[in-house]
Amino acid sequence: MNLRMMMRIIAYVLFVEAALMIPPVLISLVLHETASVQAFLISIAIIVGVAGFLYAITIKASGKRFYAREGLATTGLSWIFLGALGCLPFVLSGAIPSYVDALFEMVSGFTTTGSSILNNVEILPKGILWWRSFSHWVGGMGVLVFLMSIVSVSGKNQGFTLHIMRSESPGPAVGKMVPRMKDTAKILYWIYTGMTVINIVLLKLGGLSLFDSCCLAFGTAGTGGFGVLNDSFASYSPYIQNVTTLFMLLFSVNFSIYYLILMKNFSAAFGDEEFKLFWAAVFVATAAIAINVRPLYSTLEETIRHSAFTVGTIMSTTGYATTDFDLWPSFAKSIVVLMMFCGACAGSTGGGFKQIRLLLLWRSLRRNLHRSMHPSEVRAIHVNGRAIDEGIIHNTHAYLVAYVIIIIVSVLVISLDGFNFETNFTAVMATLNNIGPGLSQVGPTCNFSGYSDLSKLVLTADMLAGRLEIYPMLILISKSAWKKAR
Amino acid sequence: MNLRMMMRIIAYVLFVEAALMIPPVLISLVLHETASVQAFLISIAIIVGVAGFLYAITIKASGKRFYAREGLATTGLSWIFLGALGCLPFVLSGAIPSYVDALFEMVSGFTTTGSSILNNVEILPKGILWWRSFSHWVGGMGVLVFLMSIVSVSGKNQGFTLHIMRSESPGPAVGKMVPRMKDTAKILYWIYTGMTVINIVLLKLGGLSLFDSCCLAFGTAGTGGFGVLNDSFASYSPYIQNVTTLFMLLFSVNFSIYYLILMKNFSAAFGDEEFKLFWAAVFVATAAIAINVRPLYSTLEETIRHSAFTVGTIMSTTGYATTDFDLWPSFAKSIVVLMMFCGACAGSTGGGFKQIRLLLLWRSLRRNLHRSMHPSEVRAIHVNGRAIDEGIIHNTHAYLVAYVIIIIVSVLVISLDGFNFETNFTAVMATLNNIGPGLSQVGPTCNFSGYSDLSKLVLTADMLAGRLEIYPMLILISKSAWKKAR
Repeated sequence: MNLRMMMRIIAYVLFVEAALMIPPVLISLVLHETASVQAFLISIAIIVGVAGFLYAITIKASGKRFYAREGLATTGLSWIFLGALGCLPFVLSGAIPSYVDALFEMVSGFTTTGSSILNNVEILPKGILWWRSFSHWVGGMGVLVFLMSIVSVSGKNQGFTLHIMRSESPGPAVGKMVPRMKDTAKILYWIYTGMTVINIVLLKLGGLSLFDSCCLAFGTAGTGGFGVLNDSFASYSPYIQNVTTLFMLLFSVNFSIYYLILMKNFSAAFGDEEFKLFWAAVFVATAAIAINVRPLYSTLEETIRHSAFTVGTIMSTTGYATTDFDLWPSFAKSIVVLMMFCGACAGSTGGGFKQIRLLLLWRSLRRNLHRSMHPSEVRAIHVNGRAIDEGIIHNTHAYLVAYVIIIIVSVLVISLDGFNFETNFTAVMATLNNIGPGLSQVGPTCNFSGYSDLSKLVLTADMLAGRLEIYPMLILISKSAWKKAR
Repeated sequence: MNLRMMMRIIAYVLFVEAALMIPPVLISLVLHETASVQAFLISIAIIVGVAGFLYAITIKASGKRFYAREGLATTGLSWIFLGALGCLPFVLSGAIPSYVDALFEMVSGFTTTGSSILNNVEILPKGILWWRSFSHWVGGMGVLVFLMSIVSVSGKNQGFTLHIMRSESPGPAVGKMVPRMKDTAKILYWIYTGMTVINIVLLKLGGLSLFDSCCLAFGTAGTGGFGVLNDSFASYSPYIQNVTTLFMLLFSVNFSIYYLILMKNFSAAFGDEEFKLFWAAVFVATAAIAINVRPLYSTLEETIRHSAFTVGTIMSTTGYATTDFDLWPSFAKSIVVLMMFCGACAGSTGGGFKQIRLLLLWRSLRRNLHRSMHPSEVRAIHVNGRAIDEGIIHNTHAYLVAYVIIIIVSVLVISLDGFNFETNFTAVMATLNNIGPGLSQVGPTCNFSGYSDLSKLVLTADMLAGRLEIYPMLILISKSAWKKAR
């Protein structure tokens, strides 16, 4: 592998991370949170040190070509570095004394999972709280995508940007909105920033402080789920809850739809099959849950509000909660678990298996059934009227296999801690799909602090695997990827 | 579709079923179980009546060709008829008054699942008990395979036997042991019968009555799981338990291995990759469980005996129990759930997902990872040194998709009854994989009687889908299969 080039990119990523710590330093300074100021400054020094070292030893970064596997491995490693060093302020400020806990919390932030090991978030210093929520915003669209939008790549390494973007962006295939990947990355970040600002303004209008509005909007935009209150969204006004439901869902839509809308290509935007599937699923799930949980709430408005919020939070893989859905009847809880399987749309900030993959697998199954009856007919699978490359179908099937294997192995390991099956299964589903809360002992009113360090590390790896869609992590432990290194 | 030919085969299947009811009539006669004698005779009359009707209207069965889809649909329909009419003695004798319950019990028998809705099996008349257990033996190897071994097919319909055998035999690809499928079917039944007789003799030597030995051996041979005592195998001697562990595992092995051994081709037999994977899984699972549950039992012998029996019963998808594994610690229970996913070997009487499919999916995943690094290389997947046809790989992937969809939909529907997630999830796993007991409310000491009729019907369909490996059932509800009928 082209190790030098990989290390150089990681150095850039870490420089960006250090820069992103400046706002929380300022917040801590203004609010006189001395311990936090100190913790952030030391962390920045360490991160800049590591980045500088990586930069220095790769001064003559080789111009060798940069292949798909380098793209995958760079992405995987970058994210591990981001988490491993990004959690330093938590440890150094004393907010989360255990390194494994801090790592879990940080990776949960960057991967936009939102699972927490904290029992009480309200006592956290504001600077720390900002960093925790802001990591959702950074991780939602991706730090490498951000890098690609500002860095100019020399002629030799044109494939480079594409491979990196592919590895970090969710979904089976990354669409280029415009010919140059750099411009695509820029457009994505502009849309992302614009929508986040609108969200902040709407929350502010609902009576929240600017600080809270920002933190909650970061969690919504990245479909993360870290809140600023211990009861998540339960005590906010219906207006705040409904705005958040809407924005969680909006951020789960493929951003290329918004680009199409900006380009006034409405028929392509609203005719997109994944887009239609996603909204159909949202409405059906909300209706089914609302009917099932109706007796638990006094008014119809309340029933629909909590049902829609929960569907929004799970389908978008955000993880906020307005109600303890662990107390819902079995049928509604089964729908919640089912939605954990589905996930958001490709090319959004949402996680999970992705709607487009469900669509591809469903059509592939139908084709196979047809083939078992008419073995000689050859048919392609179409989405939005275009035939899908068979390689993408294969990858999607392989993805399901890897996904199931990860679930099984993870549940097996964490069950050593002795929690019940529902807890373990939904803990893995919630982390692998970057959702946040599960059911039972990891339900909306509980957290992950009860698990052992081993389990926390497994779940941390699951969060990374989920956010990066498995391959960038798998490749790091694949012998054949490293065998031919240099 | 060639409907006449299909109906004719169903008529044959029903004639066989009626004939198989003669032994329980004799048993009931000898033991003066008047109600059972009457119930069986009326049932035989009804079945012969239906079969005769189907036979009569298909006198001039058309010589049109018989395609793969007819094979699949015939198998699916035959099994539905077998269950729907085979359960009549349960209803008519009053042993199981509700038709839905009786249907559940009968399909559970034929599909070798062993899930029961009965609270007390010890009060059942012997004739009924025999029929219940014998259905396992019939269903294990397959009634259509039996039919194919005795029926001679005319020149025009040579493809016919192959399509039927393929649809009913478990596994992604049916190996022909000998050139003619009819001879293959005969060899299978001879091996099956021989091993069953040895099992009966060994149980008899352990002090059981001939009747009990037969019933238990039928359940073991078919990897079914219906016992004759309420506590399943808990009160039998260690000898009986160990013999059963051994035979459950032996019946989970691909029968072509036994044919190879009979042909003295030992290297091919013991070098078979699925065979090796299966035994490796058995030993690893037994060891892991034994270590985990050691504190629960007083002696090491007892620990290993219960661990091995449970691994045998779940991996073989039999469903007997010597101990209440629902009381085991989480880790051991997670292994049990994991084993529910795995299943036995293809071409055995065991159910589940099948070891060979796991092997194919694993190798396909590795190939995909390799391909993501080296997009230009083309590689085939090999098993036992032979390249596997890509069509089989596709089918295996599609199988996983169908399997996951069935699990999700079934859990969703049965969760309407309000049981907890562990109960619902393992109920579906236990029926779809033809195992028998699950965990929690459907654990080894409980049964399925608490579910509503709707849930029982869903689980009945799951048992059929599991035994016939989904496609013969899917095709019955596929529009395009029927569109071009006749």
